[in-house]
Amino acid sequence: MFKELAGAAEAKRALLERSGPVTRSEVVHLAAARGRVLCEDIASPVNHPAFERAAMDGYAVRAADTRGATPLSPVLLKIDGAAGGGRCVPVRTGMAAPPGADAVLMKEDAVVRGKEVEATAELHPYKNLAAVGEDVALGEIILREGHRLRPPDIALLASLGLSTARVFERPKVAVIPTGSELLPPFRERDLKPGEARETNSLMIGMYAEVWGGSPRKTSIVVDDPDLIREAIAENLDADLILISGGTSVGDRDYAPPVLEEMGELIVHGVRITPGKPTAIGMIAGKPVISLPGYPVAALAALYVFARPLITMMAHRTDLPRVVPAKLAGKIVSRPGYLTFARVSLKGGVATPIMTSGAGILSSVARADGFVLVAEEVEGREKGEVVEVSLIE
Amino acid sequence: MFKELAGAAEAKRALLERSGPVTRSEVVHLAAARGRVLCEDIASPVNHPAFERAAMDGYAVRAADTRGATPLSPVLLKIDGAAGGGRCVPVRTGMAAPPGADAVLMKEDAVVRGKEVEATAELHPYKNLAAVGEDVALGEIILREGHRLRPPDIALLASLGLSTARVFERPKVAVIPTGSELLPPFRERDLKPGEARETNSLMIGMYAEVWGGSPRKTSIVVDDPDLIREAIAENLDADLILISGGTSVGDRDYAPPVLEEMGELIVHGVRITPGKPTAIGMIAGKPVISLPGYPVAALAALYVFARPLITMMAHRTDLPRVVPAKLAGKIVSRPGYLTFARVSLKGGVATPIMTSGAGILSSVARADGFVLVAEEVEGREKGEVVEVSLIE
Repeated sequence: MFKELAGAAEAKRALLERSGPVTRSEVVHLAAARGRVLCEDIASPVNHPAFERAAMDGYAVRAADTRGATPLSPVLLKIDGAAGGGRCVPVRTGMAAPPGADAVLMKEDAVVRGKEVEATAELHPYKNLAAVGEDVALGEIILREGHRLRPPDIALLASLGLSTARVFERPKVAVIPTGSELLPPFRERDLKPGEARETNSLMIGMYAEVWGGSPRKTSIVVDDPDLIREAIAENLDADLILISGGTSVGDRDYAPPVLEEMGELIVHGVRITPGKPTAIGMIAGKPVISLPGYPVAALAALYVFARPLITMMAHRTDLPRVVPAKLAGKIVSRPGYLTFARVSLKGGVATPIMTSGAGILSSVARADGFVLVAEEVEGREKGEVVEVSLIE
Repeated sequence: MFKELAGAAEAKRALLERSGPVTRSEVVHLAAARGRVLCEDIASPVNHPAFERAAMDGYAVRAADTRGATPLSPVLLKIDGAAGGGRCVPVRTGMAAPPGADAVLMKEDAVVRGKEVEATAELHPYKNLAAVGEDVALGEIILREGHRLRPPDIALLASLGLSTARVFERPKVAVIPTGSELLPPFRERDLKPGEARETNSLMIGMYAEVWGGSPRKTSIVVDDPDLIREAIAENLDADLILISGGTSVGDRDYAPPVLEEMGELIVHGVRITPGKPTAIGMIAGKPVISLPGYPVAALAALYVFARPLITMMAHRTDLPRVVPAKLAGKIVSRPGYLTFARVSLKGGVATPIMTSGAGILSSVARADGFVLVAEEVEGREKGEVVEVSLIE
């Protein structure tokens, strides 16, 4: 039996308030910087444009030369190698302004007559001509610390001549699978009675990556407190340790007592279903989450505890995508517990997935998302509109 | 001038109805299968569990032996190596059911008295005991063609003993940057007047990947119709060609005439702003989108045309994430044009980003999302609630 169960919100708060965003940084090439978070403001190293340039196709002119020009009384300009004094120079968008030019006459406002051009519009200086630094000025802050780099940001930085950016390191997430009955995945032999394939760490590692972390997995640790202790000690250079399995209250559930012995066991047993055996501790300043071995319970604990922790450590603020949906059937929840209810989605209708029996693996495959039913709520009724968080 | 401008919806329809999802498939290892789309139904190769097993910690029993047991009138069972005939066997969750057992008495319903156990609850057969194939039966379809693999799906497949999955190939997206004035990115030297760094293909390639494609970039092609023709011809093994630049109506905008010559030029010039010079064609059955050179125009055309095309080819249905927001200022749109208006977001308020002058690059960096203003709508008023699509 668990001595005392913690509320889910309380457990999450205890975990988050003891942890913080990763402050270490590294320099990455821009071509590999997508999704990374800037750890400093970036000031432009150049003026952009670096030279006065045409913003339209047409003729570079001295604006004063076009004074009074209209379609009915055009001004004649001579095509030449420099502008001013009644001369103009053909230009294309992006070209450097030729000597003497301070504006560009759009093609649409020009009628070519042999070696001359009839300007049919009067221009102000800098019309269709970009000044030096007009887009981005030298020294201007273009992106700020904490900004997560998207493709156009990377293109912008590269346009200004940069090749790298200093970003926050990804939080290192150590994943320790435990259980004497476990066989590593991808071994193509049949299971012997009592064996199971260890696949939770595969799911946990992938989520750690999706949520902004840098995961690494240890080998399977058998149910032995010394070996679990050793595995934790070897991974205290990580920012966060996720232990899979061994967290219930059976004879061989050694993770929580080891946490208690090596550091602080903050929570063992949470009022969340599935996911009740989750334990949370701190060892040498590092958060450790001991996740239940049942896959759906592990998934619930990952979403409720690991996701907020990893994204926070990774300087990210994005939440799972949420869609509203009408319930096709009642969600039965466990009063006093935060209930992680799986639903399938189709055309705005959410169908709760029944999970009687041992239908554990199969229920996840059929789930498109989950509905969190709060402790104080007694289920959700058929026909109610609920917020479904999509499983990433 | 463009001869005839197409509507954005019409242009998109023309593009999508001439293309289709990629039908080629490949086998990938499950560890690398996240985000990939199954190209066939997957039937379970095994029963799961493969053996009768305990679903709880406790004592494996013959259910009939517990008949009539209550806390007030417990039934005594002898701890032994087999169940039945008044005997029971200690088991932990996941263990194979011992000989003779057909149910598991939970620890909570058992009081240990030396080498005997008092059962305080009556059990039915298969109570707390998972039957062979109870979770997933041999041959049962567990995931269907078209399903996009998430971490728990991959864990499920690995749990059933699988190591690989057959998935649809990613659509091959060839990206061809054009422009004689362009310098490849990441060359650390100052620009000479008239030069610009070619960074659109960086953005285009990254988006192609984000949206499910497999991008590959050619070198920069100078403004020469023969070389553009050659670059296209060399990339017709791709599923889709994205040409960057050279698509306006200037003397050196060769992409549209080359499209017309090599295949079918379906659209040249779209009523979208920015993004008007976009051209769309088909060459040898492959869609070709010629994207404007201005970065914001390229971004608009990517979102309006390339994203739906690439995701469709990649068997994906996800749309950009949309959040409602109240406008802090008016969005000015161009009547008759689909307007791609950039906004910054803060606390549910969207502030339109002014883009006067040449503030092209900088406007993207400040934008969190965009609002599409339909052709028939004349801007959106301050205070209106609009749907903001987040820039990925």
